[in-house]
Amino acid sequence: MFVVIGGGPAGRLGAMRLAQAGKEVRLIEQRKIGGQCLHDRCMTVCALNDVARLLEYAQTQKDLGILDSVPTLSYPMLKRRMSEIQEKLSSVLEAETRRAGVEIVYGAEARLEGDRVFIDDEEIRADAVLAATGSRAAIPDIPGTSLSGVYTYQTLSAMPDLPRRLVIIGGGVVAAEFAHIFRAFGSDVEIVARRGLLCDLDQKMRSAVLRDLAGVGIREHTAPRSIEGGSRVRSVLLADGEELAADAVLLATGLVPRSESLQGLDKRPDGSVIVDSRMRTSVPGVYAAGDVIGPPYLTPAARREGVVAAENILGNDTVMDYSGIPQALSLRYDYAFATAGSSDGCVTLSAPAPAGPGSFWDVPGGWAGFAQVRVDPESGRLIGAAAAAPGASALLSYLGYLMKRGITVDDFDDIVEVHPSTDGIYPLARYAAGVLKKKE
Amino acid sequence: MFVVIGGGPAGRLGAMRLAQAGKEVRLIEQRKIGGQCLHDRCMTVCALNDVARLLEYAQTQKDLGILDSVPTLSYPMLKRRMSEIQEKLSSVLEAETRRAGVEIVYGAEARLEGDRVFIDDEEIRADAVLAATGSRAAIPDIPGTSLSGVYTYQTLSAMPDLPRRLVIIGGGVVAAEFAHIFRAFGSDVEIVARRGLLCDLDQKMRSAVLRDLAGVGIREHTAPRSIEGGSRVRSVLLADGEELAADAVLLATGLVPRSESLQGLDKRPDGSVIVDSRMRTSVPGVYAAGDVIGPPYLTPAARREGVVAAENILGNDTVMDYSGIPQALSLRYDYAFATAGSSDGCVTLSAPAPAGPGSFWDVPGGWAGFAQVRVDPESGRLIGAAAAAPGASALLSYLGYLMKRGITVDDFDDIVEVHPSTDGIYPLARYAAGVLKKKE
Repeated sequence: MFVVIGGGPAGRLGAMRLAQAGKEVRLIEQRKIGGQCLHDRCMTVCALNDVARLLEYAQTQKDLGILDSVPTLSYPMLKRRMSEIQEKLSSVLEAETRRAGVEIVYGAEARLEGDRVFIDDEEIRADAVLAATGSRAAIPDIPGTSLSGVYTYQTLSAMPDLPRRLVIIGGGVVAAEFAHIFRAFGSDVEIVARRGLLCDLDQKMRSAVLRDLAGVGIREHTAPRSIEGGSRVRSVLLADGEELAADAVLLATGLVPRSESLQGLDKRPDGSVIVDSRMRTSVPGVYAAGDVIGPPYLTPAARREGVVAAENILGNDTVMDYSGIPQALSLRYDYAFATAGSSDGCVTLSAPAPAGPGSFWDVPGGWAGFAQVRVDPESGRLIGAAAAAPGASALLSYLGYLMKRGITVDDFDDIVEVHPSTDGIYPLARYAAGVLKKKE
Repeated sequence: MFVVIGGGPAGRLGAMRLAQAGKEVRLIEQRKIGGQCLHDRCMTVCALNDVARLLEYAQTQKDLGILDSVPTLSYPMLKRRMSEIQEKLSSVLEAETRRAGVEIVYGAEARLEGDRVFIDDEEIRADAVLAATGSRAAIPDIPGTSLSGVYTYQTLSAMPDLPRRLVIIGGGVVAAEFAHIFRAFGSDVEIVARRGLLCDLDQKMRSAVLRDLAGVGIREHTAPRSIEGGSRVRSVLLADGEELAADAVLLATGLVPRSESLQGLDKRPDGSVIVDSRMRTSVPGVYAAGDVIGPPYLTPAARREGVVAAENILGNDTVMDYSGIPQALSLRYDYAFATAGSSDGCVTLSAPAPAGPGSFWDVPGGWAGFAQVRVDPESGRLIGAAAAAPGASALLSYLGYLMKRGITVDDFDDIVEVHPSTDGIYPLARYAAGVLKKKE
């Protein structure tokens, strides 16, 4: 029998792959099928952002005189409905997982000591183990984080109503996404970022993101010293002495792998389990996948890692390939990018994205997103692509793959698109092909 | 010098390609750069549908108790703003075209007699001609089509306000798209389709489309006998004697190639200019592209035809490839599909689309779209793909290309997607790979 610990994207997909190969698989899940992806992160952002975008678009159309009003949001009802839908989706995933032949055990605590597996302290025999125990929100080491009114993305569902003033501590994707959402909902939002906000992002992309965060207060290169309050949070005190009033604080300071229950195998100082490209840990027969092995902390990567682990457990030699993995932020627009290969000597071109579904009414505002390509001038190969536009995420999924497969700018001649579209990548790639031809 | 007649997608792209190759190009446009695509069809549907979708999504969120109201639309203001934006986009296209080195001549009438070119009755010398004169809306041969209040998609901008009762004559994509839009705007809409509504569509896709047209009256297999009225339209009389009251009528009965000004070259009975796969007409040196050569009447195909014509004019032997061209409808969701190759012996699989951006709040309604793949079980090649989901059009652009390139269901293992997404194709393709493996 095989044991999988954790029913998030990595564990669930790994377990299903094993079951589909006819193996006996037991999946141990403490909480609910779907992991943080469904219950705390991706789908929560999707749910909230669908409403945030509607409110923003309604505002744009109202400003143009097309609509007479912008609806008012009931946040408590939003939360309730969102939670109902997440439950429903979780039960869909559960049914799919069982149908594949996986035995699911809920509520049990699973523990590893090397290759020995304990479930609720009872040792069970396992031919191989896949540990996919995920991660948790990191809590910064400052006073006041346990005050009432201080949340992480994992506890945010306990926030009863919209805060008038929300302070978000952190400078990554989660900070940006929630800042955009709560600003659209009507809260006053301040971001406090120890380094910069999304400072690893391409400069052009970052400027675009900042447009979508207009109205959000952004304090960069400043550290929070403490969260102040009595019975509940009152303010965030910064290192420079400034005090930001807050009715709620969201800690968005990263993730920590949940590996305390996994003993006897090699880990990094941050607790992430060390695996090779076949998802093998330092202990024979024990595999790990998903957030517990550390970054990139992305659902699609976790899923793939789970499947790669399962393939190797089944004896099908399979290697995890991290090239061309697209990354994305969901704000008013999607911001998505992927690279495949070294950008040394590459030519970078960018252009405004064409107006299309979701951006037509933004034309009067003078901004409908942009597209960017990075091309190796020798081979014509597309090495990088980035897009800020409605629906840009969907494009990058396939572009990431095509880049891995070595697509050149000349190949784009054969792509016949659907029109109208906000995809600025294909015309830009075609333009790049023309530019390279002229240079020859 | 090269002469291009018509500044729509085919003519404009062809002219730009010629100019980019350093050639002298004169583009003759009677009206405005951008053609029907920008001024009458694609972008108009996009503009109207962005508002229609917002209203529908607001209604869904209001029904769930999340929003307190649905905004009210000012149709006259919508029209005015839309027209302003179309003007702006047209000037962007014009600037881009000129920047590429194309000389644009507005307002002139161009005429071909074999390989002789006349502009405002003056003959000019041309080394080659690209005729891209487009199409116009077909007018059905019944009484009453010239009554006040009867429109085609080309004259719809003259409609002063929302009709209370709109009758749409026609059963194609245009009929469906405008029916959806005006229903969302609050009009009572009736479709009268001589054959069936979208009867060539895959049955599963068609059922999904009909969901999005809930509330629209659909009369199939019945012909309109006449449009009745005095000073303006009052009703549509059907062949079976029924009379449908109407404040406005939209004729959506197809397109007719505009080829009256092109004489001395071979045409079909419908007026479409006959070309070979290199866009050459029966007259040496005269090429044609876009709607004037007949179906598929799609902007991306027209653009590509224009470029193919230009390449062949430049002596770069290039053939137009119609395989894998994606097609799409924009309703509440996108409905998009493409095929590449024969479906003989293929296995068809379909599944509900995953909930994601734009469909999360549809989960309580029990429907968030679907995905479908058609696979050759021998080779594992993907022969067809179809999707009904928000953003599905963007997917099919790249899937159509990948299918042309022979992508197999096993290749989908290498695609790392962006999450969450409404793309149901990749999980379905992976599932298909598993099913085929089991069968072996």
